[in-house]
Amino acid sequence: MPELRKDPVLGRWIIISKERSKRPTDFVVEEYKSSGGFCPLCPGNEKTTPNEVLVYGREPGLPANSSRWNVRVVPNKYPALVIEGDIEKEGEGLYDRMNGIGAHEVVIESPSHQDRFAYLPHEQMLLVFQAFQNRIVDLSKDKRFRYVMVFKNYGRAAGASLEHPHSQLVALPILPRMVTSELEGTLSYFKYKDRCIFCDIIRQEIQQDIRLVCQNDHFVTLSPFAPRSPFEMWILPKQHSSSYSDQNEQSLNSLVEIFSESLKRLDACIPNVPYNFVLHTQPLRSEPLEHYHWHFEIVPKLTSIAGFEWGSGFYINPIPPEDTCRYLREAL
Amino acid sequence: MPELRKDPVLGRWIIISKERSKRPTDFVVEEYKSSGGFCPLCPGNEKTTPNEVLVYGREPGLPANSSRWNVRVVPNKYPALVIEGDIEKEGEGLYDRMNGIGAHEVVIESPSHQDRFAYLPHEQMLLVFQAFQNRIVDLSKDKRFRYVMVFKNYGRAAGASLEHPHSQLVALPILPRMVTSELEGTLSYFKYKDRCIFCDIIRQEIQQDIRLVCQNDHFVTLSPFAPRSPFEMWILPKQHSSSYSDQNEQSLNSLVEIFSESLKRLDACIPNVPYNFVLHTQPLRSEPLEHYHWHFEIVPKLTSIAGFEWGSGFYINPIPPEDTCRYLREAL
Repeated sequence: MPELRKDPVLGRWIIISKERSKRPTDFVVEEYKSSGGFCPLCPGNEKTTPNEVLVYGREPGLPANSSRWNVRVVPNKYPALVIEGDIEKEGEGLYDRMNGIGAHEVVIESPSHQDRFAYLPHEQMLLVFQAFQNRIVDLSKDKRFRYVMVFKNYGRAAGASLEHPHSQLVALPILPRMVTSELEGTLSYFKYKDRCIFCDIIRQEIQQDIRLVCQNDHFVTLSPFAPRSPFEMWILPKQHSSSYSDQNEQSLNSLVEIFSESLKRLDACIPNVPYNFVLHTQPLRSEPLEHYHWHFEIVPKLTSIAGFEWGSGFYINPIPPEDTCRYLREAL
Repeated sequence: MPELRKDPVLGRWIIISKERSKRPTDFVVEEYKSSGGFCPLCPGNEKTTPNEVLVYGREPGLPANSSRWNVRVVPNKYPALVIEGDIEKEGEGLYDRMNGIGAHEVVIESPSHQDRFAYLPHEQMLLVFQAFQNRIVDLSKDKRFRYVMVFKNYGRAAGASLEHPHSQLVALPILPRMVTSELEGTLSYFKYKDRCIFCDIIRQEIQQDIRLVCQNDHFVTLSPFAPRSPFEMWILPKQHSSSYSDQNEQSLNSLVEIFSESLKRLDACIPNVPYNFVLHTQPLRSEPLEHYHWHFEIVPKLTSIAGFEWGSGFYINPIPPEDTCRYLREAL
């Protein structure tokens, strides 16, 4: 059973998840299944993953976990948290821990091993965004969970251990610190101004037009004012909404368009750059929030987290977002 | 001039430092001066670094920046922050920025390119720890600075761009978020218990004896209860003190002994593992703090910061500290 532990000074949680390795030597070599080897996510190998929890594109009548599908969601075979059990909290002297209850799923974005998310056909990418929604809604019924973190690691340097196009989601029994910080920051602005800070950011960025990468009817892509990484991009809905899972199909279609365009612009600037994206949305079963605004953050893996970043919480970025924005705008 | 920018939601600061690269293609290749090439930190190449601000071991009468020395501190040739100028703050709509005033120095730990910090002779490592003290004290006279972050990146994967043994220090015009979080966390505990939380941690760890890697008269090395990384170690003074720069030579001698032993234990478990260490100490010109306790944190680079960590602020660690502690204890 994985375990959640809280740093007593910072309140920072960590997950101790012993599934993957046990001896010191296990840490030296990182695995990466590249095109040559066996891929557990490819069609025909469905039996090597846990049973699917969602599938799109399989014809009615075909059995579960058979090999015809467009998008498939399966529990992670090496989950950071496990689904079975009740949440139990206990102390150990001045320390606090709880057992590692949660869900950890893999969204297989395409049957084709060689596909890349940025270049998925519109309909295929739409299924991925619908799968995120569907799984968040389903997992929100489980009262043990307070948040579903949706993210993608693309490329080995960005933490991917499998090459086959996939993203992940983790349902968590506590609100992650990053989420509570965002909720606090946006609420504090709202109390002062009576406006959503992200709505204000979008207004200012459209008006200034120096960090606006692209836009369509429903979304903007920005180079954020204070990016952690070169070429970081945020994708935000123009219309205020705190909840990704409330988006209708028209909105998701628009999201597919801008997401695809933004990643293609990034790829044109730095071919095949590793990146992470993370969905930022409201906690599960929350009422709509006036102060919070759901969005995606895309962080290319171009700089390293070293001693200075560990110690300070600062990031050093060698290029201003106004410059990367210009490159991204001129890229296509 | 570098620039400091604040994320308006999270209050997270980033440094935009354009010194190093300008075009997208510059990001693809990372530099690493290994044994073969020219090393600007080796004796004989003193003229290729900025003028030294501190030197140990040069005989009286020899000119500054000549090639006989044991430890040498020089400004970073590609500084993240620059020393000249006044601090100016300005807004841009809802955003905040200030100019990037600070100091960024390199502590060259040995004349010998092939030396490794863990295996430096006692007297040599002592000079390094004294150089940290000396530079903190000197930089604290500059009222523009509020904190000096001392850290080491060892190995390319941990962010080192030069192979020659060195550590760094950065003087900052604002208190880094990590430091304010630690000060807040420890103060909150102190208000409740009237005791320093780190003193309590040390007491509990010595008594439990399951995460205690080693100790001597003045210091303990712990595997912390909630480590971000496998084999993370914290080195803390047994006697309460909030300020590294107040330590006397006896204490520093004791620190050299335990630091060297701890790193050798780590090296015996995972040979030549990349790591970062960071000094955590009180802000510049602070009175001694009853609630804060200076220490070093050593974080091996064994797991990657990927989408989940970016999005959540959680860390996933595949091995409990009780297990790594056992390996470290049995290593020598």
